[in-house]
Formats: sequence, structure tokens, C-alpha cells
Amino acid sequence: MRNFDSFFRERLDDLKAEGRYRTFADLERIAGRFPRALYRSAPDASPREVTVWCSNDYLGMGQHPALAAAMHGSIEKSGAGAGGTRNISGTSHEIVQLERELAAFHGKEAGLAFTSGYISNEAALGTLAKHMPEAIVFSDALNHASMIAGIRNSRCEYQVFRHNDAAHLRQLLEAAAPHRPKIVAFESVYSMDGDIAPLKDLLDVCEQFNALTYLDEVHAVGLYGPTGAGIAEREGLAHRFHVIEGTLGKAFGLIGGYITGSAPLVDFVRSFAPGFIFTTALPPSVAAGARASLKVIRGAADLRTRHQAIAADLKARLLAAGLPVMPSESHIVPVKVGDPKACRRVAAILLEQHGIYVQPINYPTVPKGTERLRLTPTPLHDEAEVAALIAALSSVWRELSLPIAA
Amino acid sequence: MRNFDSFFRERLDDLKAEGRYRTFADLERIAGRFPRALYRSAPDASPREVTVWCSNDYLGMGQHPALAAAMHGSIEKSGAGAGGTRNISGTSHEIVQLERELAAFHGKEAGLAFTSGYISNEAALGTLAKHMPEAIVFSDALNHASMIAGIRNSRCEYQVFRHNDAAHLRQLLEAAAPHRPKIVAFESVYSMDGDIAPLKDLLDVCEQFNALTYLDEVHAVGLYGPTGAGIAEREGLAHRFHVIEGTLGKAFGLIGGYITGSAPLVDFVRSFAPGFIFTTALPPSVAAGARASLKVIRGAADLRTRHQAIAADLKARLLAAGLPVMPSESHIVPVKVGDPKACRRVAAILLEQHGIYVQPINYPTVPKGTERLRLTPTPLHDEAEVAALIAALSSVWRELSLPIAA
Repeated sequence: MRNFDSFFRERLDDLKAEGRYRTFADLERIAGRFPRALYRSAPDASPREVTVWCSNDYLGMGQHPALAAAMHGSIEKSGAGAGGTRNISGTSHEIVQLERELAAFHGKEAGLAFTSGYISNEAALGTLAKHMPEAIVFSDALNHASMIAGIRNSRCEYQVFRHNDAAHLRQLLEAAAPHRPKIVAFESVYSMDGDIAPLKDLLDVCEQFNALTYLDEVHAVGLYGPTGAGIAEREGLAHRFHVIEGTLGKAFGLIGGYITGSAPLVDFVRSFAPGFIFTTALPPSVAAGARASLKVIRGAADLRTRHQAIAADLKARLLAAGLPVMPSESHIVPVKVGDPKACRRVAAILLEQHGIYVQPINYPTVPKGTERLRLTPTPLHDEAEVAALIAALSSVWRELSLPIAA
Repeated sequence: MRNFDSFFRERLDDLKAEGRYRTFADLERIAGRFPRALYRSAPDASPREVTVWCSNDYLGMGQHPALAAAMHGSIEKSGAGAGGTRNISGTSHEIVQLERELAAFHGKEAGLAFTSGYISNEAALGTLAKHMPEAIVFSDALNHASMIAGIRNSRCEYQVFRHNDAAHLRQLLEAAAPHRPKIVAFESVYSMDGDIAPLKDLLDVCEQFNALTYLDEVHAVGLYGPTGAGIAEREGLAHRFHVIEGTLGKAFGLIGGYITGSAPLVDFVRSFAPGFIFTTALPPSVAAGARASLKVIRGAADLRTRHQAIAADLKARLLAAGLPVMPSESHIVPVKVGDPKACRRVAAILLEQHGIYVQPINYPTVPKGTERLRLTPTPLHDEAEVAALIAALSSVWRELSLPIAA
């Protein structure tokens, strides 16, 4: 048997030399004490308690008692897994109900649940682009890898418009043949910078050119809008999007993704997307947990207010401490380091010496020279944890003589 | 806002006219009483109890108390979701341990868990094919959609060898340039026919041409071999495969997929596969449940023996009743109908009049003219359920004057 390992090792060595090799932090979340977790430096090492400052469980819903109760109940009632694909014995009553509730959440006719947000984008966008004859996709320059995967895998023609730039999108749409179907895809909240897309401007342009509009709200569902349905809800624009895509893996505190849209559109994706058809369905307990989460989220206006308040407070205090907070309009608080090795070093010192876990974010996730810490404050980070974070960052910044300006 | 629905409706009408439109059975599994489930003909209809004869929860592990206990414990301890991607706060201690145990299960150095078996094939095979310069993939003609997705999305050159045909594979490998890296991908148990690949013959050819061997054991893990590690274990061939891929969604009773292989190979996939990197990790409770499932499975030789016995018994009794069982060497028992509309009709009568749920399998999942019912007997189907199935099938076959020969 030929050994290919030397080839793999060389490529991994390249990553290491570029400072891009990823090591994962081995964590054990502590239900009831979020954002605290146990960290192990090796699988058999003794655990140490740390504060997590980079969770996408933005509201701490993962530890909500209603969620746990729904999951426990479903496991007792229906067992662990779905037992098959959606078509072959895997459609649980819980998932049927979840899809109806997600549709209603976004004011759409129908919803469809996927095993992940990644696959929901890949499958839905990929299927629309592939099966609409002569379609052209117009994709925001900072769209998530899952949307790019769907677009590329569809093999359709696509064009990239400058990030959040409605005027550039207009130019591209104007230049495209009028008879060709146009799909425009973008996000509401961008994960790494925390900026928010000008939804109305983009929609106005899309509608002028009769484009199908695909909005990824994964970093917004649960967090924005009167009932937590996202930025489109907050702006009163949800009805103007053909597809609103979301995740059950971030503010919902679980795993899975979904799309919502018109009944024919959703049925079309359901019927043609390989990534939906040929995979085991989400477990009934995940669907039950997501329904419980959705119920809490719809009524969690107070939690959303506190979430925004702590994010604003954190940004202000980081700035006051002379730390290079990057501009952000959302709950995502990036702090610039600007060098991949320094970024790793900062994170390592925070973890080892200060009990603070923030994953360094390096190229290719963000452009070279903008390496950063991406902080995600939640309503459950308390004053002592915020103060400890700012003190620790100030200390590390001094220790490593890091730049102040963002 | 332009309405694209008429386009989607037309395409859905085409599917309906071809008899290929899928409707999902709304089921509520009954833990402790598998394979019984509650079926609803509409989301708000009253439920009726049915026997499921097409579950991929092949051993009924989904309702195993050890699995449920592990999941309950993990939810209480760590909450619902992972909270992030593997790189950004989502690596739970449970998933780290699970990966080590899966590697040991298959006698490999390392393991990597994915959100689904679909994405494990798409991501792993896609990444290997894309990143090994000048690679050619040789793919069995009946490989699963997820492997095909990985191969196609990699954009590498690929060739299809006739199903289970080592001689044809040899011809293709011989004709390929010797210096080019070769990846050969196939399954052990094929899901729709229940036949088993000639692993040794295929391996001998692959090794002669220094090919990297990728084996999908999703329909075999838990079910074959002394410790349930699959057909490769049963045949004593596991050490000769570079990659063994499996699922946590079938015999394990849960959701998720995985690969095992050498440490550099697994680290390579971990470091380069977008479908692994950019997605929220499996929940700790799923990893904990999978570990409990694996522990049970490793010691479940008796359950595997009973599983094979009931499958053999069912095939013999279906044949004795004059029903067209298709040849199968495994636990999968296909019964040929040979026409898409008749196939749907049989399934509908079984469900509505006999309380038996078997999903009709039509083109494109199987070739036209071989439309079938795909029965999956489990060790938990009792004598009364087997007798009821055979009586019901015999009655429907007479009622519709269906062909007898497979």
C-alpha cells in the first residue's frame, strides 16, 4: 500500500510555515454557567475553567432549560436519531412542525430544514443556480464559504459585486442580458467584521432588474427585529426577499440550517437538492429543541436589548482602554492585531495566563494584515468577566507592544 | 418583486407527471417500541400506529437506553449545541474523544467527525481530489450521491468503473499515466441492491497501481465484522484502506459522519475541507450518544447475528410466498415492482390499509424498470410483524396483479 503521507505532511508544513495551521481548543461547556467552560490543553490533560469570548451561541440559548426539557422529552418519546433521509422514514413530526414555524417566523409560506447552515446555503443556492436555465448569480464579495460553494458547484455563471455596494451591483445587473434569470445573494450581518448590509438599497436594485433575492441571516436570526427574525424583520423588508436563510446553530443554540420562501420555491429545493435529499434528517430531539428555542426567541426582546447594550458597552470600554476595536454595527466586536503570528500569540497568552478563550482569526478567513480577535459578547457575560477581559487585553497589548489603531 | 413561482411549479409538475415527485411520511418514532411509529397523513391529522419497514436505524440503536442516558447526561452537563465551528469554540471534549474511538474502531491513527455522512464524503473525497495535483478519481458506477458530489465539485478528472468490476477498474488504471495520483472510491454494502463489493479483488488492483483507496462503509458499520467495524473488518482488510468512511446516522442511531485514516491524511482533510471548516460542530450530546452507541456496537455480536438471521429468514419467506425478492447478500431486502406508479400505489396501500410503512424507491435513486420496495428488517421486528408484512405484500401483489419474478 503506497504511503501518501509525505505529500500530506508537506502541505501541512506549508500551512504551519504561513502561520495558518489551525489547532482546536478542547472545551467542555458548563450548562447553567455559560460562558464558562472547561479547557484541556491535551485530551488527557486536567481541565481548567475559562471564559469563552468567541461563542456563536450568541444568547446562551444552548443552556436554556426550555431547550433542554424539549430535547430530553423528545429523546424519551422518539429516541435519538431520525432513522433515515427525509424521504425514507426520516421525516419526524417535530421537523414538520419546525418547518411550519420557521416559515411563519419569517412571514413566508414554507420552510425547509437542513443538517447545517452550510448545507442549506450550498444546497439551496446551488440548486436554484443550477436548475434555472441561463441563470447568473451576483454574489457579495464577502459572502460566506457555504454560499460560494453552492454557486461554484452549480457551475453557473457568477459575478462578484463589491461588498455591500448597491451601485456596483446595479452596474453588473445592467450589463447582464435582460432575459437571463438573475439571483442576487448576500448576508445581513457579516460574521468577521460585524457590519450590516444596506438591505433596502440592495433590494431596490434587485427589484428593478427582476432578480431573485437570497438573504443569509445566520448571524442575525434570534438577535435583531421585534421577534428576532433578523435584520430584514427589523427593517420591515422580509416580504421583499424570495429566500431568507437562517441557522439553528448560532442564536438558536443547536445545530442545523433552514430556508424559508414561497411554497413552490421551497418545494423545488426540497425536490432537487442532493445535499437535502441524500442525507439523514436532523434528529427529532434537535427539531424539538429548535422549536423550544424559537418560542423563547420570539419573546426575547429584553434579551436582545441587553445583548446590544453589552456589545455597545464593550466596544466603548475597549476604545477607552486604547485597544484597536474595528468598526462594527452589530454584536460582533473585532479587535485588530494585524499579524498572524502575533494574533496566535495573543490568543495563547489570554488562554494560558488569563483563562480567557478567544480564537485567533487569520487569513484566509479574513484578509492578510487584518488578523484579529473576534469577540462575541453575550447577555450572560457579567461585569467581572468584561472587566477581566479588558484588563487582560490591555496587559497583553503592552506585553507584546501591539499597535493601538484599528 | 418578480414572481418565479410559475417556473418552479412547472418543474414540479414535470416530476409529478413522471411519477418522481416525493411526498414525505410524517412519523413520530416510539422509543422503546421500535420499529413502531405514529403516522400522520397531514400535519394536523390524528396519528395512527404503523410498523416501519424501511428504517436505516438498522439495529434500533436509536432507542437504546445507554444512548439516551449519554445524551441526557451531556445536555445536562454541557447544554444543547456546540456553539461554534470546530475552530471557533465548537470543539467539545466529547467530539475529541469520539474521534479517537472511531479511529481505534477501524484500526486507524486518526478520525474526523462531520455533521453528516453526506458531507464527510463530499468534503473528504472532494478535498483529496482537489488538492492532490493531477489526481484522477476512479469511482464505482453505483457510488452514492455524496461521493459523486465530492468528485464533481473537486473538478478533477474522474472515470467511472463498472459496478464492483475489478477487471474494468484494472483496465482504467492501466490506461492512466503512471505518474498521476490515483484515488479509487467505492462502497462496501450498496444501499439499494444490498450487494457487497469484492473488497480484496479491488484492493489488489488498487495496490498494483499505487492508488489511494477510499471505502464508504455507511451501510456496514455496526453490522458486519467481529466488533461491527464493517465489511473490511470482517474480511481482515481494514489495514489496507487509506480511508474508511462511516456514518453515525444509520446503525449508530444518530446523525453525523466520519472518516478514519492516517494522522497526516486526516489532518489534511481537517485543514483544507470547506465543508468541515465552515460549519457548526456536532453537538456534544450527539458525540456523547455516538460514543455510547459505539460501546454497545463493539460488543453487539449477538445482535448482528440476529440481524443477519432475520434478514435471511425474511428473504426466504418472501420467496416462498412468490414475491420478487431481488438478489442481495446483505441485510437489505429489495422487492421489485418495476414501475414507478405501481411502486407508489403498493406503498400507499400498505400504509393506508395495512399499517405498514415502506417508502417506494423510484428513479433516479434506482434505474427505471427496477422500481422497488426496499425492506430493512431489524433484530427488533418480531414474528407477528414479519408475518403481517408477508401477508400484506401477498395481498397487495394479488390485488394489483404485480409481476412475481424479480
